[in-house]
Amino acid sequence: MDAPRYEVTPIGWVESPLVDMADAPKQGDEGAPDAWLVFDEGVGTGMRDLTVGTEVIVLTWLDRARRDVLAVHPRDDPRSPLRGVFSTRSADRPNPIGLHQVRILAIDGTRVHVGGLEALHGTPIVDVKPLLGPAGRR
Amino acid sequence: MDAPRYEVTPIGWVESPLVDMADAPKQGDEGAPDAWLVFDEGVGTGMRDLTVGTEVIVLTWLDRARRDVLAVHPRDDPRSPLRGVFSTRSADRPNPIGLHQVRILAIDGTRVHVGGLEALHGTPIVDVKPLLGPAGRR
Repeated sequence: MDAPRYEVTPIGWVESPLVDMADAPKQGDEGAPDAWLVFDEGVGTGMRDLTVGTEVIVLTWLDRARRDVLAVHPRDDPRSPLRGVFSTRSADRPNPIGLHQVRILAIDGTRVHVGGLEALHGTPIVDVKPLLGPAGRR
Repeated sequence: MDAPRYEVTPIGWVESPLVDMADAPKQGDEGAPDAWLVFDEGVGTGMRDLTVGTEVIVLTWLDRARRDVLAVHPRDDPRSPLRGVFSTRSADRPNPIGLHQVRILAIDGTRVHVGGLEALHGTPIVDVKPLLGPAGRR
């Protein structure tokens, strides 16, 4: 039986001063710049309750990653022993989905300004989720 | 210009006593059962450094969700006002990717037993990532 496949449809795009992978920090809290999430008009209803000052989880499709890689040298340091990608945050992995926890700084229509996003300019956005608060306040 | 689309390829499957969506808890810490992550043999290298006792983030493709929904009544309570899906953890959303923080209880070859997973039996697994520790220990 062939394995099923599922199609990810971008809901928007990252606008960022980060254009070169060599300049990108490994994680958002390691000096990543502020960036804009530019949502497609068609998903405006989905993002209408986002609010300034809250933290959200942004899921991206890391479209410049390699999908045939199963082990990497952590932090791109060749002296580090190879490590299975599911024990790393490497962008290279079978399904290169990025997880980014960011704070919303401003909202302008379907454009959302966020702090410290380690994603390159043009990276497709595939989802946004709230952080989970304590049970009973969801 | 047509928007690009990306293909998600499952790396494994959830084996769980949860078979009926009506029985599924909303979140993993609300009574979800322990479950097995059954990885495809082909990605064994990717999961070889997972270790018992650690917490990981499992990404699933919620294949029974509706993708044409942009606003929901939170917690399926019709008295709650409609809310944009990107401000909820609803499974129904344009790209139905589930995020589950779980603890690894046991590992048996390419089968990984985890605690408290709110995903139905047969749900495709698309990625596993470590939690991020403090900067400097990555």
